[in-house]
Amino acid sequence: MSPQSQNTGRRPELRHDPVANRWVIFSPARAKRPSDFKSKSPQNSNPGDNSSCPFCIGNEHECAPEIFRVPSDPNDPNWKLRVIENLYPALNRNIEGPCEEKEDMGVPARAISGFGFHDVVIENPVHSVHLCDMEARDIGQVLLAYKKRIQQIASVESIKYVQVFKNHGASAGASMSHSHSQILALPIIPSAVSDRFEGMNEYFKKTGKCSLCEVQAKELLIDESTHFISIVPFAATYPFEMWIIPRAHSSHFHEFDCEKMVELGGLLKLMLRKMSLQLNNPPFNFMIQTSPLQVKESELFYAHWFLQIVPQLSGAGGFEMATGCYINPVFPEDAAKVMREVNLPVEG
Amino acid sequence: MSPQSQNTGRRPELRHDPVANRWVIFSPARAKRPSDFKSKSPQNSNPGDNSSCPFCIGNEHECAPEIFRVPSDPNDPNWKLRVIENLYPALNRNIEGPCEEKEDMGVPARAISGFGFHDVVIENPVHSVHLCDMEARDIGQVLLAYKKRIQQIASVESIKYVQVFKNHGASAGASMSHSHSQILALPIIPSAVSDRFEGMNEYFKKTGKCSLCEVQAKELLIDESTHFISIVPFAATYPFEMWIIPRAHSSHFHEFDCEKMVELGGLLKLMLRKMSLQLNNPPFNFMIQTSPLQVKESELFYAHWFLQIVPQLSGAGGFEMATGCYINPVFPEDAAKVMREVNLPVEG
Repeated sequence: MSPQSQNTGRRPELRHDPVANRWVIFSPARAKRPSDFKSKSPQNSNPGDNSSCPFCIGNEHECAPEIFRVPSDPNDPNWKLRVIENLYPALNRNIEGPCEEKEDMGVPARAISGFGFHDVVIENPVHSVHLCDMEARDIGQVLLAYKKRIQQIASVESIKYVQVFKNHGASAGASMSHSHSQILALPIIPSAVSDRFEGMNEYFKKTGKCSLCEVQAKELLIDESTHFISIVPFAATYPFEMWIIPRAHSSHFHEFDCEKMVELGGLLKLMLRKMSLQLNNPPFNFMIQTSPLQVKESELFYAHWFLQIVPQLSGAGGFEMATGCYINPVFPEDAAKVMREVNLPVEG
Repeated sequence: MSPQSQNTGRRPELRHDPVANRWVIFSPARAKRPSDFKSKSPQNSNPGDNSSCPFCIGNEHECAPEIFRVPSDPNDPNWKLRVIENLYPALNRNIEGPCEEKEDMGVPARAISGFGFHDVVIENPVHSVHLCDMEARDIGQVLLAYKKRIQQIASVESIKYVQVFKNHGASAGASMSHSHSQILALPIIPSAVSDRFEGMNEYFKKTGKCSLCEVQAKELLIDESTHFISIVPFAATYPFEMWIIPRAHSSHFHEFDCEKMVELGGLLKLMLRKMSLQLNNPPFNFMIQTSPLQVKESELFYAHWFLQIVPQLSGAGGFEMATGCYINPVFPEDAAKVMREVNLPVEG
């Protein structure tokens, strides 16, 4: 129940994206003009107070154990990023024994022990520096750290899927303001990943082509570089949701070419800066949507990884919770146009 | 990254509920003691200011058209509840023509016109009265209004699913503080409903029984009445999520016996009061999880409706968004014990 529409002429529409594999309601009657969307809870720049932040350089002893750092010498105090264990992990890397299913509670429901890895990537040693403030080559280093850590985890047979994600801002789920991202390695393939695979498989069966190799719609394009494009997806679940997609077919993020990570870092930086300027520095999440670790050969043809960026502009209510169907007030082609036309100031 | 666990001895576990049909991570290491969970953003009692609230008695002219009221005489100024159109509907009831699928944007993705109904149930004429303050028989009237409106909508052939839901509190999605709920009738079957049906069907195929007729686990029970039980589900997605389930097999909420609605209202009231007292009056949602309108005879055997109540105690981040897999810090049997033992004061 938002202010009356200024978004004339548009009627509500339901769209089904082959990749996300779910319906989204586009409802302009509830919307402001696409260019009027702004975050109501912008994220402040962090003050430079590192006295109590365990992620800051010099406070390494307050953190859970380190897995690796960049540069790689563990005794080099001038690190650029660190990958560490999460002090409060959702899953336990030290549980013994295999993940056996058991029947419990008198109901034939399934339960397995919570084995898995939950790591943190400290993206920068300095408290006040956000990811979008960093140089493309340093963002590239962060992406390479994701890749390296997934490669390490991939050798553990019982891990089925690895989710890389970033929460920026308290309302996007971040409990620490120092710029960081997380890697959660799971002993199961989660439902949204199965749904995505099912959707991409159906598309492939219908067309003989990969759904993300096929994305080419001009109206949905935001920006592009040599090896990547950024778009608003055809049935974006959230207003101003953006995807960065490698042009060439690629199933696993962690098998992607090292030498293209700086270019990806540059496009990610551009999207984050545009989002921050256009949408008033909103809390946001980004997620790497990759393929399960044990993928059959046949699935490699339709599985294509991408990086999903979601600004937090609206909350979910009971309808979304019950149905998995979201109401998006901004048509994707309108959001893409707004983001395409953002004029960034030159970085100083 | 919450305060250190006081929840000794428990290890993380993943559970898969046959009904919700998705994995949930139970991670006590991140939790407080189950009895220490409280809402950080409790909902204030509304002040009695009805001067600017269109849902208040006397302000009917500020609302979108009425569908029906109780008592049913549309000229009776002393109404107890009203069902009205949503002034800013997500879907449009006036779109002509059938919902045809079309190919658009150069991608073979599906889009259909946004035909549907989006109604509001004003549960009480008085601004300051919340649902849990009402008598069981008046809550029963609200449930009967849902039933009547779904029955009306069920005659429209292109409507496939009707979602009844309540958002209480701004962070649970409510834009109006006057006690109300919503009914959204969709021309599609949303993905979470398909997933639920698939899960219940698999259970039926394995066991020959309906998954919700089978629920009997003592440890998960909160309360019970003659025809209903309330439980915390085996793999609750959210901390302190609760389900009210009719004991007898029933596929469609809107075909359930009228004479049991007051009893259901009583159990719903009890759950809402317990939740408010134990969890510090949290924002919450409830949803009626029913069956699609055109259900095949074979599906009636495993489809069982229930009412889901979810207090808003924690937000979702990038991990949940990407995977559909939630991290719940409270084991369901612990949450059930806490809710079972809440001592309510006598209403005065």
